[in-house]
Amino acid sequence: MIDKRTPISVPEAQKRVMDAAKRGTQKEWVPITQADGRTLAEAVYADHDIPPFDRSPLDGFAVQSEDTKNATSETPVYLEVMETVGAGHVAKPVTKPGQAVRVMTGTMMPEGCDAICMFELTNEVIKDGKTYIEVKRSFKIGDFVSFKGEETKKGDALMQEGTLITPGVKAVLATFGYATVPVTKKPKVGIFATGTELLEVNEPMEPGKIRNSNAYMVASQVENAGASGQYYGKLADDFDACYKAIKSSVENVDMLITTGGVSVGDFDFLPAIYEKLGATVLFNKIAQRPGSVTTVAELDGKLLFGLSGNPSACFVGFELYTRPAISMFLGSKTPYLTQTKATLTKDFPKANPFTRFIRSEIGYKGDGTLTTGPVGFDKSSTVTSLAHTSCFTVLPGGSRGFEAGDQVDVLLVDGPRSAQSLVLPKKD
Amino acid sequence: MIDKRTPISVPEAQKRVMDAAKRGTQKEWVPITQADGRTLAEAVYADHDIPPFDRSPLDGFAVQSEDTKNATSETPVYLEVMETVGAGHVAKPVTKPGQAVRVMTGTMMPEGCDAICMFELTNEVIKDGKTYIEVKRSFKIGDFVSFKGEETKKGDALMQEGTLITPGVKAVLATFGYATVPVTKKPKVGIFATGTELLEVNEPMEPGKIRNSNAYMVASQVENAGASGQYYGKLADDFDACYKAIKSSVENVDMLITTGGVSVGDFDFLPAIYEKLGATVLFNKIAQRPGSVTTVAELDGKLLFGLSGNPSACFVGFELYTRPAISMFLGSKTPYLTQTKATLTKDFPKANPFTRFIRSEIGYKGDGTLTTGPVGFDKSSTVTSLAHTSCFTVLPGGSRGFEAGDQVDVLLVDGPRSAQSLVLPKKD
Repeated sequence: MIDKRTPISVPEAQKRVMDAAKRGTQKEWVPITQADGRTLAEAVYADHDIPPFDRSPLDGFAVQSEDTKNATSETPVYLEVMETVGAGHVAKPVTKPGQAVRVMTGTMMPEGCDAICMFELTNEVIKDGKTYIEVKRSFKIGDFVSFKGEETKKGDALMQEGTLITPGVKAVLATFGYATVPVTKKPKVGIFATGTELLEVNEPMEPGKIRNSNAYMVASQVENAGASGQYYGKLADDFDACYKAIKSSVENVDMLITTGGVSVGDFDFLPAIYEKLGATVLFNKIAQRPGSVTTVAELDGKLLFGLSGNPSACFVGFELYTRPAISMFLGSKTPYLTQTKATLTKDFPKANPFTRFIRSEIGYKGDGTLTTGPVGFDKSSTVTSLAHTSCFTVLPGGSRGFEAGDQVDVLLVDGPRSAQSLVLPKKD
Repeated sequence: MIDKRTPISVPEAQKRVMDAAKRGTQKEWVPITQADGRTLAEAVYADHDIPPFDRSPLDGFAVQSEDTKNATSETPVYLEVMETVGAGHVAKPVTKPGQAVRVMTGTMMPEGCDAICMFELTNEVIKDGKTYIEVKRSFKIGDFVSFKGEETKKGDALMQEGTLITPGVKAVLATFGYATVPVTKKPKVGIFATGTELLEVNEPMEPGKIRNSNAYMVASQVENAGASGQYYGKLADDFDACYKAIKSSVENVDMLITTGGVSVGDFDFLPAIYEKLGATVLFNKIAQRPGSVTTVAELDGKLLFGLSGNPSACFVGFELYTRPAISMFLGSKTPYLTQTKATLTKDFPKANPFTRFIRSEIGYKGDGTLTTGPVGFDKSSTVTSLAHTSCFTVLPGGSRGFEAGDQVDVLLVDGPRSAQSLVLPKKD
């Protein structure tokens, strides 16, 4: 138990979480149709060449290039069309000079043919009941052929362990016959919301109370991160009840999230609960706004995330610490939000000693630059801005404010993930 | 039926699709816990203020500012602490001068109090069995109070119709008591893969055949876009069977996707099927690579997407035309992929008369600029690159190639969506 709260930096807090985070070891096989959003438990290698055979990439005629070597517009060559073969069928071998095969896109090259003459470059002529094509140019061996293995060779590494399964990943899995897909079992993440002030979503408003929004938000973040969320309900401000509920649920989950109860108020029981559980507190104060009281502890190899009860602080705490830990469990090589720079669209005149994560909207400009601007009221307790948050504007702590037009750091909430944890922007 | 294939531009093709696309009219209510990824069927307005009452944003003491007007370090004021009140409880009114209430973060302001003195600014002292706080500074009315409605006022428009339900959106929905959420019924999108060459994912490889990857990929794209995919299986190259299967399934879906069969090969039956169905072909040739033969038709108000059978072309066709139509059905105001500019990381020496959509990976640089580079073999038939595609590099058609370092257009496959359809990059 840490008694005195000394703020640590966000990168240091991320490092402590990730040093303690565990890679999930249980693999399960799911049907490819249910694999979206899961992550590969193992790397995928090509078990055959792509294309698996030489083929025609277009609709045309498979020819023997030797037959065409003297063909010109003045001295066309006539080749007998032996048959028409669609993709999926295998042509009879061509055995004599002067023979060609009409083939469709994707058709395996007929044995004996070595070039493709597309429809547009030839005419068919009928003579004595036989069909011929008139070829007015020469073809070299391999002209217009798609070769076996030209895209991917058997044995090529295609996708690494921890890859998120997207539509494009599924195309590759289907190509290589993964009717079922090896994925890492989702971590089970328990969720408690603490606070006597909380009403459930279906309860009418009461004086002094607010509706519990964190549990629904966090459960959604958990699922979005690829884990399985288990909401255990809300806990009133009663130490013994909180302790018992948390203790019994920790045994059934891979990680536990609580919202609220981590500050210095009279009913902020989480610090004492972590102590009584015998958990190791990794940190309980971070030099960030919102969410400076975000507390993470470890018990029996399981991470306990004490997120703030303030919705914006809770949201930010999840994205900075919990999401990367879930991604690590799933074997992802890119567990962090992507960091880049954008032009600030609004003044932030006030200075703040801590690094600020302003809930913002990213703008992609026509010239390839990015803008970032706040999406609402900027307080730790704000909830409505979260609906429109696609990035965090990261303002370094220091003695000055910021002006519209400044180049500032951003973390993309909505976008590709990164292998790099937060790099603190420079202070003034 | 359009007989001659005259290529139209991508923006024109997008416009024809969106002019024909329908907004879904059926609303359904789903539990908030199952609302992720759905879209709001109606706008959401605040039915109460946020915060719903004046409250303390921190752990401290609610005071009467009038009591503190002469307080300094030299002449501190002592206020009697009447009770301790946690969030969710309602304090007894303060009725006499010199009284204060110990309150926690989120506690409703006690009646009679008008400012908050945080823990850190005061000391508690016990005298004659009563608890007092020593206040060494003055407070103005409203100091450190979070006011009713300061974040959001009753009646404020919070989220528009067609908003995608994300974790942040759920926080707002929970706050306003949406135990069930009004969402637009998902469009049902039927999927056929055509081609005798196709093997199902669980079938062993055979000469001349390839596995069906498009159906799994497209089904995943359909779900990702917020629709409900129904895979009807693969169709061999037989006109009557294809016609019957497509005709009977159109009646049961809101949109129909086929992959393959739209080119000029002998077994490319889709054009004739559209004609026999009496469908209106919106276009059957687009000045794009890959996917120039992408064909879209309309029948009884339903869109029929004839995507290419080549995986990369199929993927691109879906993202450019089908995804926006699904988003439109769901009421989204941002149905298109976001377009921006990035620095090309690789040479593309060959010119192409058509606009190219190269499957690429977007890079976010530390300085706020973007890079884009191809993620594999660049052919219409390529499948493996799709696993790594996070953007399309958009190279305008023309007579020149492109070099690493050029600023080029990109469409973000993985990222926020846009209200703006493709704006063709300038040709040389």
